Amino acid sequence: MTLSVTILGCGAATPAATVNPSAQVVECNGRLVLIDCGEGTQVQLRRNKIKFTRIQVVCISHMHGDHVFGLPGLLSTFHLLGRRDPLVLIGPPALEEWVRTTLKTSGTWTCYPLHFVATTAEPLHRVFVDEQLSIYSFPLRHSLPTTGFKIEAEVGLRGLRPDALAAWNVPTCDYRTLQLGRDWTNEDGVVVPNAELTREPVRPLAYAYASDTAYLPELPAWIQGVDALYHESTFAEEHRVLAQKTLHSTAVDAAKIAAEAGVGQLLLGHFSIRYRDRGVLLQEALPVFEQTLLAEEGKTYRWMRKK
Amino acid sequence: MTLSVTILGCGAATPAATVNPSAQVVECNGRLVLIDCGEGTQVQLRRNKIKFTRIQVVCISHMHGDHVFGLPGLLSTFHLLGRRDPLVLIGPPALEEWVRTTLKTSGTWTCYPLHFVATTAEPLHRVFVDEQLSIYSFPLRHSLPTTGFKIEAEVGLRGLRPDALAAWNVPTCDYRTLQLGRDWTNEDGVVVPNAELTREPVRPLAYAYASDTAYLPELPAWIQGVDALYHESTFAEEHRVLAQKTLHSTAVDAAKIAAEAGVGQLLLGHFSIRYRDRGVLLQEALPVFEQTLLAEEGKTYRWMRKK
Repeated sequence: MTLSVTILGCGAATPAATVNPSAQVVECNGRLVLIDCGEGTQVQLRRNKIKFTRIQVVCISHMHGDHVFGLPGLLSTFHLLGRRDPLVLIGPPALEEWVRTTLKTSGTWTCYPLHFVATTAEPLHRVFVDEQLSIYSFPLRHSLPTTGFKIEAEVGLRGLRPDALAAWNVPTCDYRTLQLGRDWTNEDGVVVPNAELTREPVRPLAYAYASDTAYLPELPAWIQGVDALYHESTFAEEHRVLAQKTLHSTAVDAAKIAAEAGVGQLLLGHFSIRYRDRGVLLQEALPVFEQTLLAEEGKTYRWMRKK
Repeated sequence: MTLSVTILGCGAATPAATVNPSAQVVECNGRLVLIDCGEGTQVQLRRNKIKFTRIQVVCISHMHGDHVFGLPGLLSTFHLLGRRDPLVLIGPPALEEWVRTTLKTSGTWTCYPLHFVATTAEPLHRVFVDEQLSIYSFPLRHSLPTTGFKIEAEVGLRGLRPDALAAWNVPTCDYRTLQLGRDWTNEDGVVVPNAELTREPVRPLAYAYASDTAYLPELPAWIQGVDALYHESTFAEEHRVLAQKTLHSTAVDAAKIAAEAGVGQLLLGHFSIRYRDRGVLLQEALPVFEQTLLAEEGKTYRWMRKK
């Protein structure tokens, strides 16, 4: 079971020559999910040598330009590259209206199907599932309808208890149904509860993304125990009033959320360009939550767990 | 009288980490006009240290993404930078529909007025004029409604003929009306024709932009004698059939247009990424039109003429 995230952009709205707007690629059991798609994302994908065609799902947190204005170019490029696989686009309802108008006015059509899934204000709304992963959206607090996303590797099969299997003389042809959670009955009609012969599957790897949002006290309940959380930290404490006014978070806000949610790792991102030295954000977050890192563009963060 | 063009992007549709899609800034008598605005244009403006706020007019040739997908980000940034001056947006009618939908769905408003001017299929349709320059659109031949643009420095005042003025004893207070083209009458009621006392104003500097288009025989008539022409040359001769099929030009097509129009300088651009060495395009164009250059991103080309 593997999970990784590659940061393509972790800057806030104001553009700069050296910082890219929001975009990141999550890899989960071999599946690629693009989260947010600010202007220039397709060039960042090239720079980071990520195969465009492997992206199956795009999740858009909200419609502010620094999170979505790179999407039309990417959709056109998928077409130019001859993509055939469907693309799932998950985002607020306005996403579909905008993408369809953009395709129409730019005379673009796609040689692959587009499937839109609308996010809602419902907490932990499952917006995607396949054999490898599930994606849930949850509401954030920002000036437009905005959601975060939780990506969870699919729960695997139950583990077998070799000693118990040997004691009951279970034939190997019955192992599969046990792994799926069924009880087992021997030739004498004795029913052995599944729990006696198997153990819980390994806890699935999980990753959460929360950008853009004001400090949101409900959030930890929705992302309890995820292996990693990317949380916006647009501002430092000295600009707390500005953070509140613009419905953004400080690094301390992000660290509080991470601590309450008991996450494995916190990645701070969505940095305002006003901080030449982002060290101030890290210094403010660390006392609140020790496992904090500053997200870096072009860097991949990995987590693993044995099945 | 000065005219310059800074190339921000001269690549064709397929994105690459090292080539930018179409965008260029024309400076004419101190006015800045942005022509086309592919994805990443605002970052290219920063890299080339061009002051965003000095851009007064944006001309969009057509709605293909590699010519316009950078515009929403730029409009948002103008707002973030607190722009107050109106911005004139010139392009096909679909431009206004798309921009308005984009602003609405992304929750963006602009703290400056947007003035839309629709291009048409009419040759040399004047779409903008102020004290410093005129902009004309002309139709090109492509798969969507597409126009090129001609930017002409405004015609200045007529030049004075000092000898004739002295011979007729013209008082200096009458010079201005002469420069504006009026005849002059002396104290005895003798009318001296304006042409005797003045000469034609200096021919205005002019620049033309033609991307994207198939070879268009009518084009030279519309851009006769411009100081510089940027003409697309997406393909080399070996891909002539592909050029015709996709309604693009070869370098030889572009050179033929330049030769027939008697332009001062030809800049080839809108290069397909298939040519690692663009020298082939230049080699094919030069025998047809000697004053040919390959456009280079980040480079500024300048023309001057004394008034």
